[in-house]
Amino acid sequence: LDVGGTLAKLVYFEQETDAPVEGHRERHRELGGEFHFIQFETRRMQNAMDLIRANDLHNHIVEMGATGGGAHKFASAWQEELGITMHKEEELESLVAGMQFVLSTVIGECYTYRPEELKGDGWRWSRKVQRDAITYSSTYPYMLVTIGTGVSILRVDGPRKHERVSGSTIGGGTYWGLIRLLTDIDDFEHVMRLAEQGDATKVDMMVGDIYGNKSDALEKLGLPSNLVASSFGKLVAKDDPANGLKEEDLARALLLMVTNNIGQVAYLNAKLHNTPRIYFVGNFLRQNNISQRRLAYAIDFWSKGEMEALFLEHEGYFGALGAF
Amino acid sequence: LDVGGTLAKLVYFEQETDAPVEGHRERHRELGGEFHFIQFETRRMQNAMDLIRANDLHNHIVEMGATGGGAHKFASAWQEELGITMHKEEELESLVAGMQFVLSTVIGECYTYRPEELKGDGWRWSRKVQRDAITYSSTYPYMLVTIGTGVSILRVDGPRKHERVSGSTIGGGTYWGLIRLLTDIDDFEHVMRLAEQGDATKVDMMVGDIYGNKSDALEKLGLPSNLVASSFGKLVAKDDPANGLKEEDLARALLLMVTNNIGQVAYLNAKLHNTPRIYFVGNFLRQNNISQRRLAYAIDFWSKGEMEALFLEHEGYFGALGAF
Repeated sequence: LDVGGTLAKLVYFEQETDAPVEGHRERHRELGGEFHFIQFETRRMQNAMDLIRANDLHNHIVEMGATGGGAHKFASAWQEELGITMHKEEELESLVAGMQFVLSTVIGECYTYRPEELKGDGWRWSRKVQRDAITYSSTYPYMLVTIGTGVSILRVDGPRKHERVSGSTIGGGTYWGLIRLLTDIDDFEHVMRLAEQGDATKVDMMVGDIYGNKSDALEKLGLPSNLVASSFGKLVAKDDPANGLKEEDLARALLLMVTNNIGQVAYLNAKLHNTPRIYFVGNFLRQNNISQRRLAYAIDFWSKGEMEALFLEHEGYFGALGAF
Repeated sequence: LDVGGTLAKLVYFEQETDAPVEGHRERHRELGGEFHFIQFETRRMQNAMDLIRANDLHNHIVEMGATGGGAHKFASAWQEELGITMHKEEELESLVAGMQFVLSTVIGECYTYRPEELKGDGWRWSRKVQRDAITYSSTYPYMLVTIGTGVSILRVDGPRKHERVSGSTIGGGTYWGLIRLLTDIDDFEHVMRLAEQGDATKVDMMVGDIYGNKSDALEKLGLPSNLVASSFGKLVAKDDPANGLKEEDLARALLLMVTNNIGQVAYLNAKLHNTPRIYFVGNFLRQNNISQRRLAYAIDFWSKGEMEALFLEHEGYFGALGAF
């Protein structure tokens, strides 16, 4: 169990398959039995506990590996209501242990994006390609960026050797908190679909907005006019800032702002620590193609091809797995 | 003249003092005559030009040093309507030249903040102290962070030797654009006053919100429970995210988010380039004590006292001055 600021992630292992627990669920046939991957909102913890008790799922379980800040916050409730003792594991230990376990056992876990030519429409970073994680994982050090409610950046030097070197308060919680203030959207998968259709240039101030679009100066500076100069900066000059904006546009602009910033902080840290590989994990990336592609592109662009952003299929469950 | 994405900054030099031009104005007795410092919103450029023409201020002026993206965008309008040729200077050249000029001629220009003990209430970074800029400016390299609508980060190696090494799209335009979307505030000085009274912990998810406030785990980790884990992250778990929030709280939380992020990107770059001094300039810092104090504190904290954030009294006018 991994109880974060926004989501709780539960992984359990068994032979049978049906279990009436609420939340998103995935099953993977591995190691002879099956892993179940479940997640629910941390604020629904009481509902989850009620369901577990009502369905007798807690029988015969006396101890459970648990991590994330909520493992501490909810430990006494699990003890009193379900008789389960939370065996608390340190959060980043669990994350790295779970990730190393999956990287070394699951084939096809690791991937990135590369550019793909579109029909007469230039290039897009949309080609998903496998990366051989086992080969990679033998080459330390690497950076590990976990994007949950907040962002932590770790330098990993070996199987049980890692250090939190940086982070950011601008993470998934920032995105979702601001989206909830700015729009009526109340579902993360929905906002991801909307963001696919949005136009960020309606709110972002582009270099071309400042210089004028057909400026010789831009050509001389080597700056493209469609580069973002200021996220949401176009709204400073409008009489009514909300005029003409759709939820789609806000969803996309904010997503790119948060993503670019995480990518930049990760890149600067990777440069400081001289690590060519940056793994991005965490539930913010779940069903979030825009952010994954942008990170792949941005890390390649800033590093002039010397670094690579890598992603993992079970992006949000490593903490819960590692707490086993 | 320096025409940015949000504000246009005009500096002129003369003997007399009264000139009926709209906008914020400051005068400084220096070099025998007087410098006038005026700023107005870039989107009001047409009004400014009308005023200049109506008051015959353009007479006898045939050429004017100009910089910023808008120097390119508005050059033909100034030529046609006022007969003034804009002699265009590169933006960052002008910024550095103007800053070096002021640092070497104006006594008391440079300052920072240091901690001050409050009556029984711990410490606050509120003590403004002078720094001898002339001594400092002889010691290259240093970082120069200019926070306007967007953010540029320069490494300065000598009087006319500098390079833009980084930047951020999360700048003053992001703050002001989002504030205009989230609140009804329509004046930058007003939002600064409101931010002084706000409580950011109403929207930010704190470490203590995740772990529980009296957690042994936090003591073991050495994390204070009042550290921000996720900006605006507290809103992910509320049924109605806007419930109980005041404009003051949003104004403060967003200001700290933008400021911390600029500070972090600046710090990481200073570490990469091994420069102990970081000058922060640009109009985002104007009458913005919260950001200045936070930057002073954060740079000291992250660098463990090895770097210092520095500020300048004429923070927003160096580009316009340097275009002379």
